[in-house]
Amino acid sequence: MTKTGVWLIGARGNVATTAMAGARAIAHGRTDETGMVTGREPASRLDLPAVEEFAFGGHDIRETGLVETARSLSESGVPTAETVEAVAEDLREIDGRIKTGTAVNCGEAVADLGDGPPLEDRFGVEEVVDQIRDDYESFRRAVDADRLVVVNVASTEPELAAPDRYDTREAVERAIADDDQDLPASSLYAYAAIADGHPYVNFTPSTGSALDGLDDLARQEGVPHMGRDAKTGETLVKSALAPMFAGRNLRVMSWEGHNILGNTDGQVLEDEANEAGKLASKGGVLDSILPDMGHNRVRIDYTPSLGDWKTAWDYIHFEGFLDTQMTMQFTWEGSDSALAAPLVLDLVRLAAHADEAGESGVQPQLASFFKSPLGVDEHDLSRQFDLLEAYVERHAGSSGTEADR
Amino acid sequence: MTKTGVWLIGARGNVATTAMAGARAIAHGRTDETGMVTGREPASRLDLPAVEEFAFGGHDIRETGLVETARSLSESGVPTAETVEAVAEDLREIDGRIKTGTAVNCGEAVADLGDGPPLEDRFGVEEVVDQIRDDYESFRRAVDADRLVVVNVASTEPELAAPDRYDTREAVERAIADDDQDLPASSLYAYAAIADGHPYVNFTPSTGSALDGLDDLARQEGVPHMGRDAKTGETLVKSALAPMFAGRNLRVMSWEGHNILGNTDGQVLEDEANEAGKLASKGGVLDSILPDMGHNRVRIDYTPSLGDWKTAWDYIHFEGFLDTQMTMQFTWEGSDSALAAPLVLDLVRLAAHADEAGESGVQPQLASFFKSPLGVDEHDLSRQFDLLEAYVERHAGSSGTEADR
Amino acid sequence: MTKTGVWLIGARGNVATTAMAGARAIAHGRTDETGMVTGREPASRLDLPAVEEFAFGGHDIRETGLVETARSLSESGVPTAETVEAVAEDLREIDGRIKTGTAVNCGEAVADLGDGPPLEDRFGVEEVVDQIRDDYESFRRAVDADRLVVVNVASTEPELAAPDRYDTREAVERAIADDDQDLPASSLYAYAAIADGHPYVNFTPSTGSALDGLDDLARQEGVPHMGRDAKTGETLVKSALAPMFAGRNLRVMSWEGHNILGNTDGQVLEDEANEAGKLASKGGVLDSILPDMGHNRVRIDYTPSLGDWKTAWDYIHFEGFLDTQMTMQFTWEGSDSALAAPLVLDLVRLAAHADEAGESGVQPQLASFFKSPLGVDEHDLSRQFDLLEAYVERHAGSSGTEADR
Amino acid sequence: MTKTGVWLIGARGNVATTAMAGARAIAHGRTDETGMVTGREPASRLDLPAVEEFAFGGHDIRETGLVETARSLSESGVPTAETVEAVAEDLREIDGRIKTGTAVNCGEAVADLGDGPPLEDRFGVEEVVDQIRDDYESFRRAVDADRLVVVNVASTEPELAAPDRYDTREAVERAIADDDQDLPASSLYAYAAIADGHPYVNFTPSTGSALDGLDDLARQEGVPHMGRDAKTGETLVKSALAPMFAGRNLRVMSWEGHNILGNTDGQVLEDEANEAGKLASKGGVLDSILPDMGHNRVRIDYTPSLGDWKTAWDYIHFEGFLDTQMTMQFTWEGSDSALAAPLVLDLVRLAAHADEAGESGVQPQLASFFKSPLGVDEHDLSRQFDLLEAYVERHAGSSGTEADR
Repeated sequence: MTKTGVWLIGARGNVATTAMAGARAIAHGRTDETGMVTGREPASRLDLPAVEEFAFGGHDIRETGLVETARSLSESGVPTAETVEAVAEDLREIDGRIKTGTAVNCGEAVADLGDGPPLEDRFGVEEVVDQIRDDYESFRRAVDADRLVVVNVASTEPELAAPDRYDTREAVERAIADDDQDLPASSLYAYAAIADGHPYVNFTPSTGSALDGLDDLARQEGVPHMGRDAKTGETLVKSALAPMFAGRNLRVMSWEGHNILGNTDGQVLEDEANEAGKLASKGGVLDSILPDMGHNRVRIDYTPSLGDWKTAWDYIHFEGFLDTQMTMQFTWEGSDSALAAPLVLDLVRLAAHADEAGESGVQPQLASFFKSPLGVDEHDLSRQFDLLEAYVERHAGSSGTEADR
Repeated sequence: MTKTGVWLIGARGNVATTAMAGARAIAHGRTDETGMVTGREPASRLDLPAVEEFAFGGHDIRETGLVETARSLSESGVPTAETVEAVAEDLREIDGRIKTGTAVNCGEAVADLGDGPPLEDRFGVEEVVDQIRDDYESFRRAVDADRLVVVNVASTEPELAAPDRYDTREAVERAIADDDQDLPASSLYAYAAIADGHPYVNFTPSTGSALDGLDDLARQEGVPHMGRDAKTGETLVKSALAPMFAGRNLRVMSWEGHNILGNTDGQVLEDEANEAGKLASKGGVLDSILPDMGHNRVRIDYTPSLGDWKTAWDYIHFEGFLDTQMTMQFTWEGSDSALAAPLVLDLVRLAAHADEAGESGVQPQLASFFKSPLGVDEHDLSRQFDLLEAYVERHAGSSGTEADR
Repeated sequence: MTKTGVWLIGARGNVATTAMAGARAIAHGRTDETGMVTGREPASRLDLPAVEEFAFGGHDIRETGLVETARSLSESGVPTAETVEAVAEDLREIDGRIKTGTAVNCGEAVADLGDGPPLEDRFGVEEVVDQIRDDYESFRRAVDADRLVVVNVASTEPELAAPDRYDTREAVERAIADDDQDLPASSLYAYAAIADGHPYVNFTPSTGSALDGLDDLARQEGVPHMGRDAKTGETLVKSALAPMFAGRNLRVMSWEGHNILGNTDGQVLEDEANEAGKLASKGGVLDSILPDMGHNRVRIDYTPSLGDWKTAWDYIHFEGFLDTQMTMQFTWEGSDSALAAPLVLDLVRLAAHADEAGESGVQPQLASFFKSPLGVDEHDLSRQFDLLEAYVERHAGSSGTEADR
Repeated sequence: MTKTGVWLIGARGNVATTAMAGARAIAHGRTDETGMVTGREPASRLDLPAVEEFAFGGHDIRETGLVETARSLSESGVPTAETVEAVAEDLREIDGRIKTGTAVNCGEAVADLGDGPPLEDRFGVEEVVDQIRDDYESFRRAVDADRLVVVNVASTEPELAAPDRYDTREAVERAIADDDQDLPASSLYAYAAIADGHPYVNFTPSTGSALDGLDDLARQEGVPHMGRDAKTGETLVKSALAPMFAGRNLRVMSWEGHNILGNTDGQVLEDEANEAGKLASKGGVLDSILPDMGHNRVRIDYTPSLGDWKTAWDYIHFEGFLDTQMTMQFTWEGSDSALAAPLVLDLVRLAAHADEAGESGVQPQLASFFKSPLGVDEHDLSRQFDLLEAYVERHAGSSGTEADR
């Protein structure tokens, strides 16, 4: 396949750093594709770009070098110190391709992370967008990529009020031209990508391409896009477990979820405005699968000693036959980056495939990757996997063989 | 619909008693169908016999009255003392329709539960079968039922050695005629049911109708049958969770399951021979969904103070991206009877429906009810639910409407 | 021993109702003293008043009958419906001895629970106190008690600002005379008790007798008093576990505690002002035992379906030898009333004993009962138990014999 | 203080390797004494030998180099790869001081670990003992130590039948002289140590010095000894928690403990004979603190993927006031070596101190370190800590000052 450029918004963050370090570790033969959905059936039957061939670049408002971030991550064990050193040279090369981005409307907590003046300090909205487009194109040429995939892995923004204002392509473009100060960074990045024909994936709960006007644009321009909010831990488990209660007609009276985590995400989520966006997305999964549920709360707390690890305790109080009250509880302990990073690589591969296949607009086959999959009402994890499998069946015809199964 | 007679093998056990008490409590308007799969979409769209109309009878080797068993169960809270008193009269009536059965090849632990001489003490194999058939027919007439469904809810038998001996209808019938002392009770009950055209469901890990010769008979006689080993607790959760690990390419290195329970089942499983049958069935679910799993152990221990409650702790050690080791653990605490009993009623309804619809042989649409579904390789719970939904789609055509969805 | 009158502040609440129902159930021979500290060694060696002989009365701002409250509790299983009916007549008799009390400075959430106008709507502070003293005395005479013990089991008040204002007996008495509107209800009840020579126990996190001026009064009048905040569940476990980490020099980096509960307490604690008082008390135990701990958070959330049950999940992240990070987590599931009620009866017995023995002021031997024991810095549960044992050694001399041990 | 030689039985095992690597890491300033009881109050007030000054040697039946074992351990994270390299030279030096030992009566599972012929293949019992004494003395001279402390950290032996045969010094010495083939390796090592005046500590559940004849010898020779079975994980927690249930008169109906571990210990315990010794020791703690407990089971299972980590899940089913059934469960996840190794260093220091102070026979102040403390009936962890504190009070008189507290 053709060479794929990967442009990461929030390129200096933990998820981006781990994704890039992981891709390079695979290229150096130090690890395999465990944890990647495209590393196994059914998605492995597709003709996908090789992770080893990815060229990375991106935007960020921080200036910390990737090696330094990777070393800091290695204190939590992922990646290991050995892996960091093995890919350090590669990361330093990528460092030179990361440009200063925008954090407009990302909230105080995110803005505080920045090391220098973001784009919006110098430019109006339209100029910010133009700069982003220039950055995309310069990168694409520099790495000689046939295709660019843009993935937003930046920290969570506050929820956008009244997104209906931007329900057509024209409304979005007028807002940009009129220097509308309400448009959040994630949507500017999304607009710039889609307008230039680059597939866009929103890995975060931020707005990104989740405006009807941007979907409108994507369909008109024949560009695939998808989001939002990658389903990596507690919510992933919920989407696997909740259908069991529904299917067995067990009435969930309360589902309490308590998440503790120690990385930048946790710090940013201490800010109430940013947390609201996150919680809305996490809560929706259960509401959809268990519409009659009595009580549903998700707590996210910052526990510094956990570093990049996230622990979730969920307590499910349910009623069965003869009004019997029963309980289930689970504890999930995972490395946030180790769970998220492989999905970034998966989504680049699958977005590139969709682009190659001529798909445009939202991509329902990617629903299993997201807490709030755009354009898909299905939250049952197995049924979301079925959407991917069906896509593979449609597209793997010539390349997949019986022997692959 | 027509009147349905329900014949329970192990009619004096906890599951049977709770199923009957629950059905009568529903009939008296004291509780609803929570916990019953047929109490909600999609199965509720089928034209099913009403639980309120079920007539109950059965075989057992114990003589303890149903009210006494129900009161003993109410010490564990299910059913409540109030419910027991409300249905006590109904249970006493059913008492009169429970006949002494056989426990041949059920193992020492089961035989020890018996209060009087079982059928095999007086009869040869063929006479035992004849007596069972007489008991079925007498009951059907007594309660004036149009259809009889036989469900095995007796304690677990030891595994049958060399079941291939019974791979044709002829082999089974010859064995009965030749007084083959190896055939276990569950298969004698199954033969008697199927030979007389009664749908048969094996709720337990025992052999029952899981002999090729009995399936042969069922298909020839046009009788539906299904089993085995109802999936009520820990294994149910496993079948919902394991596909998540598989789908995300997370490599499960170890899955430890520790079950503690305090009822007769626990006592019987203390006997190693009986436990072997149970564990084989529980382990198969993970082996099927996670073929590359490194280590898989299921422990079942008897903890008297738990009464009819079962607690399972599962610990899942898995590897993700960049060789990262992570863990998930869950604790499930449920009333064994409350979880099992509604499924008995569901299976009666759905077996009756299949019979009415002219189905015969194994019934894959019932796979989601079983740990070892006969004739179905799929152990992913959601995909098993899909089999039921597809059946409903095929059969609810005229009665189901858009408005039901 | 002499007859003991028990006056409960918050007499219509769950804890009070369960304590009274339990005492009467013991009197009727329906249950035993399991769960009561005084029901076993070492405290059982003291010459204590019999629970069967207790006469109950109290104050409340609600008017719901005790039988109704007990029946509502029995929906959560404690006490059982059978027990409630067995003691219903006794509870109705007690109903007639419960007077309307005061909720002054108890916060909005508590005031909202009231059914009629509390004392402070009709009276100034001094008159409220006088009314309380009249109520105490009338009850004592009515039940012909030799001694009255007053126990505060009312809902948690907001924290009192600047309690140092009340650091002498004179300051307290002047405040009452001057109609000081800041004194909270719990302290008015405490003043009235101590001034009249009745031992006072504060079972709650409210201020109660935790004013230096009230301790001053108690010592001058020769009255024992103690508090505050009974240690019934999660904090009890913490006070048993934390010394293990300290003693082994394991450095606790984070201790997260998440409590979910469904009763009135939970509702009241949803009010932030009331929660602050509770959390200060719970947090102190760990700060005392693990002074170098990095991070300590306690969450209390209201989960209606739990009724009177409380579930706590605690996650302890600690560092050991060679900088190794390890974890412990526990889940505690208890009936709040079943855990608290027996301690109320214990404290009545032990306060009566202290009074009989001529003790006055704070009572360190009762430290193990409280999250914030007055006058005691020791939070290690075993060492608190040792204080009780030493008290028993001192006082059981004549009545205890070698054979008792 | 004087120079201390540390002789480890099982010197090539995980615990020994981690203890030595840890001591050397402290000496190199790479880590501190976190996890060591003697690293904090009260024990730190004693005049103890410095860990940095320890000289190490020992016996083993394996020949794998310490660096290789340490590197293998570092795959489980403890010690880290960086630490192993930092102490590699030191470990290689120690390698030269490890002699081939005996595994007589250690069971098949232990014998299978050996790389060459153990002592008993060449010698009779008396010669084995003589060789051990020679090895002790050669080492002491080689490292120029003023004192030698012998610690048994070898794998668990099967239980010794009829230990009463060896109830006097004479009986033990006669058995050795008569070539009694029943004496286990741990007791031969203990005899050799005590006979030559070296303090002996049995860190394992094996017999070691737990023969009355060896205690006899120790008291006659003025040598301190102690054991057995270090309390590092699940049992440690039990000994902290069980007194809470006892003190509150909460009746434990069932206490289920399920341990899974992946190191050599786990493999050896798969052997039933060896497991019996371990379980007897673990079970005793609860039996002592909760004599009325209904049911108590401890399971130990081998889960290879856990490496050197041990996970315990305990489920406690208890009854409180008004016959209310409640539950507590905990999960403990620890590195076996990281928990055990610092205690080895603590015990060397404290045994050396006791020797210096002229103590002989069993050492009750060390009870908190053991599951089955010799000569001490107290299993309550806090009370065991009190024994240590009292010892410190007696001995730290001159060196401890107010400022230390």
